Amino acid sequence: MRDLARHPELLSLNCATVRQRWNLQQIIEGCQRHGIRAIAPWRDQVQAMGLDAAAKAIRAAGLAVNGYCRGGMFTSPDAAGRRKAMDDNRRAVDEAAAIGADCLILVVGGVPAGSKGVAGAHAQVEDAIARLLEHARAGGVKLGLEPLHPMYAADRACVNTLRHANELCDRLGAGIGVAVDVYHCWWDPTLEAEIARAGRAGRILGFHVCDWLVPTADMLLDRGMMGDGVIDIPLIRGWVEAAGYEGFVEAEIFSANNWWKRDPEEVLAVVKQRYATVC
Amino acid sequence: MRDLARHPELLSLNCATVRQRWNLQQIIEGCQRHGIRAIAPWRDQVQAMGLDAAAKAIRAAGLAVNGYCRGGMFTSPDAAGRRKAMDDNRRAVDEAAAIGADCLILVVGGVPAGSKGVAGAHAQVEDAIARLLEHARAGGVKLGLEPLHPMYAADRACVNTLRHANELCDRLGAGIGVAVDVYHCWWDPTLEAEIARAGRAGRILGFHVCDWLVPTADMLLDRGMMGDGVIDIPLIRGWVEAAGYEGFVEAEIFSANNWWKRDPEEVLAVVKQRYATVC
Repeated sequence: MRDLARHPELLSLNCATVRQRWNLQQIIEGCQRHGIRAIAPWRDQVQAMGLDAAAKAIRAAGLAVNGYCRGGMFTSPDAAGRRKAMDDNRRAVDEAAAIGADCLILVVGGVPAGSKGVAGAHAQVEDAIARLLEHARAGGVKLGLEPLHPMYAADRACVNTLRHANELCDRLGAGIGVAVDVYHCWWDPTLEAEIARAGRAGRILGFHVCDWLVPTADMLLDRGMMGDGVIDIPLIRGWVEAAGYEGFVEAEIFSANNWWKRDPEEVLAVVKQRYATVC
Repeated sequence: MRDLARHPELLSLNCATVRQRWNLQQIIEGCQRHGIRAIAPWRDQVQAMGLDAAAKAIRAAGLAVNGYCRGGMFTSPDAAGRRKAMDDNRRAVDEAAAIGADCLILVVGGVPAGSKGVAGAHAQVEDAIARLLEHARAGGVKLGLEPLHPMYAADRACVNTLRHANELCDRLGAGIGVAVDVYHCWWDPTLEAEIARAGRAGRILGFHVCDWLVPTADMLLDRGMMGDGVIDIPLIRGWVEAAGYEGFVEAEIFSANNWWKRDPEEVLAVVKQRYATVC
């Protein structure tokens, strides 16, 4: 298992962690000041800066882009909605290629409005990814399927376990892998086995960290800083690395009432310190 | 599949649905007025009424008690806490027997304070249930292990899938079964298979209904009335009944800002109507 205290270069910053106060240019500069060597930017901030300008600034700063946030949201009650989503996802693939991202992260979408149950959503998602994969393979962009916590099944993502993600990847073939986020997966008693399975298939494309707070005040925007919650992060990182993962450890903290309100300089300092000591 | 519109006698009321406004005596009388033939009472309301008085009133009203809420909360950072929990669970078993409940529902407890990860909690829970089972078997009370939604893994129950519950039951042997609550399990792509597995083992002891609202404003107290959310309740009931379940359909709605604020007479009328039309 890697000693993160000796490998600060393995830290990646998901830009959501500080995006409430900084635009992408400020995030790039902040990462340089703090010695952070990789980022996972969000589409809207890239588009606000301009794709070419963002790509150039990231390259000039020597930053790796380990993931691009995000594609997905494939599900829709009607064919027009699904076509629109597919068009948008193709553009996201193109942007990921232009910005040099290692993969495009997919948050697949939940139950379409007016529907009941997950079966229809599952079918829509698999069909959509299969079609997006053709475009992604042609563009040399990997897709990073991220299972989200089951509490998001209705409104954000109907793929909620690594097992389900692995099964989809098995069926979909080359060009797609998984992102393992401790926040979404920490509770799952099959996690170790499914991480090993993903590793055997060479498909672990990302490892994301934050923490699960007790209590959790908000289902979306109350994630904790690593070390402040109940997730055994080193245990899961050990499983991921034993499965062959050699990539970045990406800190991604959605925290409307705590970390997003603080000075990003402080947030980055704490992220670095926790990365080195509790992850 | 049973036609619920023709079988009003299969409806059970989990008393939590109206307990903010009615005590147990009022709930018993309300069920009689509305033709509801079974209830799942909570320990504190039974104790407030007195165990003997409650048992007598329930029998006099001709109500079945399909489940007793609840045992569990086994996990603790120290042995003294676990002993205290075990003593309390033995009393819950005795109360369930006295009140004539078909089973004691178990919400097993989450990650002990100060701990990280689920492994320790899993071990504590399995150990505790194994010991409680001796007492439950001796008293002729079945234990109904209820997997809770993964969003409760930290603070309420570290058994979060029916698969995990089935595995525990396989290891624990006779006297324990599962309660399938659509709110906790609806998102799970392995649900149909695990319901069938539970049915083959003859261990489905309860089937609980409510609905998952979009958006969900509160992780604990914003459950929806059947039909108001995204769960395909008839689909899951079909699986449960195909697996051999012939018991009650129990409505259990935690809803601080909606149903708990309404007149329980209205709530019971709506429960009955939705039970007959959308479940």
